[in-house]
Amino acid sequence: MTDQQLVKPLPISGFPEWVPEVRLVEQHWIDAIRRKFERYGFCSIETPSVEALEVLTAKGETSKEVYTLRRLQADSDDDSDARLGLHFDLTVPFARYVAAHLNDLVFPFKRYQIQRVWRGERPQEGRFREFTQCDIDVINPEKVPLQFDAELPRIVHEILTELKLPAWSLYLNNRKILQGFYEGLGIDDPIEAIRIADKMDKIGADGVGQLLSTRLGLSDDQVSACLDLARVNGGDSSIVDTIGKLGVKSDLLSEGLDELAFVLDSLSDLPEGAVRADMSIARGLDYYTGTVYEAKFLDWPAYGSICAGGRYENLAGSFTKRSLPGVGISIGLTRIFAKLLTEGLLETGPSCPTDVLVVLPSEERRADATATAATLRDRGLNVELYHQADKVGKQIRYASRKGIPYVWFPPFDDGKPHEVKDLGSGEQVEADPTTWRRH
Amino acid sequence: MTDQQLVKPLPISGFPEWVPEVRLVEQHWIDAIRRKFERYGFCSIETPSVEALEVLTAKGETSKEVYTLRRLQADSDDDSDARLGLHFDLTVPFARYVAAHLNDLVFPFKRYQIQRVWRGERPQEGRFREFTQCDIDVINPEKVPLQFDAELPRIVHEILTELKLPAWSLYLNNRKILQGFYEGLGIDDPIEAIRIADKMDKIGADGVGQLLSTRLGLSDDQVSACLDLARVNGGDSSIVDTIGKLGVKSDLLSEGLDELAFVLDSLSDLPEGAVRADMSIARGLDYYTGTVYEAKFLDWPAYGSICAGGRYENLAGSFTKRSLPGVGISIGLTRIFAKLLTEGLLETGPSCPTDVLVVLPSEERRADATATAATLRDRGLNVELYHQADKVGKQIRYASRKGIPYVWFPPFDDGKPHEVKDLGSGEQVEADPTTWRRH
Repeated sequence: MTDQQLVKPLPISGFPEWVPEVRLVEQHWIDAIRRKFERYGFCSIETPSVEALEVLTAKGETSKEVYTLRRLQADSDDDSDARLGLHFDLTVPFARYVAAHLNDLVFPFKRYQIQRVWRGERPQEGRFREFTQCDIDVINPEKVPLQFDAELPRIVHEILTELKLPAWSLYLNNRKILQGFYEGLGIDDPIEAIRIADKMDKIGADGVGQLLSTRLGLSDDQVSACLDLARVNGGDSSIVDTIGKLGVKSDLLSEGLDELAFVLDSLSDLPEGAVRADMSIARGLDYYTGTVYEAKFLDWPAYGSICAGGRYENLAGSFTKRSLPGVGISIGLTRIFAKLLTEGLLETGPSCPTDVLVVLPSEERRADATATAATLRDRGLNVELYHQADKVGKQIRYASRKGIPYVWFPPFDDGKPHEVKDLGSGEQVEADPTTWRRH
Repeated sequence: MTDQQLVKPLPISGFPEWVPEVRLVEQHWIDAIRRKFERYGFCSIETPSVEALEVLTAKGETSKEVYTLRRLQADSDDDSDARLGLHFDLTVPFARYVAAHLNDLVFPFKRYQIQRVWRGERPQEGRFREFTQCDIDVINPEKVPLQFDAELPRIVHEILTELKLPAWSLYLNNRKILQGFYEGLGIDDPIEAIRIADKMDKIGADGVGQLLSTRLGLSDDQVSACLDLARVNGGDSSIVDTIGKLGVKSDLLSEGLDELAFVLDSLSDLPEGAVRADMSIARGLDYYTGTVYEAKFLDWPAYGSICAGGRYENLAGSFTKRSLPGVGISIGLTRIFAKLLTEGLLETGPSCPTDVLVVLPSEERRADATATAATLRDRGLNVELYHQADKVGKQIRYASRKGIPYVWFPPFDDGKPHEVKDLGSGEQVEADPTTWRRH
């Protein structure tokens, strides 16, 4: 093959891939996340990467980001695959899955889903065209107990803590508080007011105030009350009194405050600052109707949310007449992982899962070395047998370059003992493959 | 939302998805496969689902099965995404990955890759449009030691045994034997002869003989020698003598026989019949140059291979000038799994990973029940706290329907002991959440 025919093996922008030592860390992360989801009894589901376009666009809003499929060799008038698209999140496929398998599921149905999703967006920092999300949701006909509104942030808290992320906070709010407060203020279109309040991050309090006044025609007193509410935040349920003192009243507001107090009280054993109620968090999406969540890195406030979710009244309404409320939260694995990698904060180790490299002393002693490797494997160790009878120094160098912690020397002559070398300490000692344990 | 607007949540043909209790088994399978790959020191990599079309079609042959991507809202003259396609196997992406990261990898590079792949084919039994493959390959500049030709079928043997598949056999051959034998017979185009021999499955020995005679103009003696070779099979290296007795000689044949003998001798400790050399196995793909593998279910010979692979001289030749030979094998996870499901041979159990359901005695005792659940979780158990203070019978029924083995009763009154019920045996005993262990 000549040079001209070589295809450049370049990565495609927005489709990340990792070298083995980075992938190994990602794998540990995914294992830790999965383990924690299962610790709370959530079951795994996976859905196809592909959904019918009418499923993906049932809610209409994000259709512009969908990748559709087409067979390379399809006739130009054959669009049978063109009604298929890659899923852009795990919520829509989950809703479709629940509707499709209603009679096979036990409710409340608690599932986790760790899968790749695709969005045909322009790649930029924190935005990928293919990325992995880790979602948990609880869904139940008619009513989802409030216990889960507290359980989900606890799970996320435990995961982010275990992953040793740089400083972050998980913010909570309840849309009933915002809507109820706005209703209590006599605002005619509280939903539009929430949409405006959600811009706080981008346009600041002044900008929000101006929009409330010009778009919704609110009085100065109303605007100022809205901004007073947005400034309220705190780590425990005393925040309910603070809001009460703003003097606004409505049934919906009371309901929201009760719910928020329940969630905060349930989480009161967590370290201070880990979970904060913050009235400036609104989550723009219309389908949230109660508790909402959003986690961010404290040092990179502009980086976008690293976890997000909330409670919705009727998730699968596009697919079934059954009322299926739920509450869920999604961890943006790739977004978090890639940021730590970029910032040089991801500690990588070995490039393989191997515990022990067994040295091959000579071709003549291959059977013995193979048996030694098998003995160690049977005892639950991850073991490589070096592939040829190279000089011992070269074999050790292979282990060292891959980050393998131990090198095992089967007898080089009959009657000699086994030895094992700890590449970390340099210590080499006699050992028995049937009883040896790594430190 | 009215009836007319409902979107049917139907599955798409060729894109399988499983209910939770089936997914749980699939997850156990994937865990077992991964654990075994790691037991031999293979590292995980993942590549993007998407590759540039020129990468996917670098070898030309399977381009008709590729799904290309297009943004739903792309302008009709914007084909920037149309040069992207979903990968149709894990070998091409692996080759591109190795070429892209040559300087970051330690060789011999031993990787496993468990990912979904896509093919725009008409779905039929055993053929899916989205399915999961589990690949292991060893790649090394210039030369890959023969040890790995034996290690890969051993790993696959251990995996298929652990998964308790119905009767299967892993067939071995070496393309050098076929090519060397044909050369020794004086056949001008041995590669074409291999392609014809590969049709044995479909057209039988008579059909193969006829093609060899009409297409390649072989004499009756040559045809008969080819068919004699194809009939040779056996479980140990005595097969080498059998082939020797056919009286054909060439250097390449001797080399192939030596390699096959090495592999069979290395695997001689496996149970009889697990691995068989079979001279009728040719593997049509041109890039195989030595050992080839193919595993099949014995009871469903027409079902297609459930594992396949082999040795190739230069995998990444389309992407780099470096010579990178390798050897690899792929386990067709979805193909195997779906067949067992269809045949009713897949034993399913619980629909969740939960070990213990903690009963919620009453809202007043919620804090106590929550603490009990936390204690059990801290000790490594997967625990659900029932979500509302329903009648105890209803709470137990929930556990029973999900296949949760234990129900935990925190004290219903102060001073009373904890109790735990084994739903399998029906036995209920006092227990301490800080010391209790499941059987």
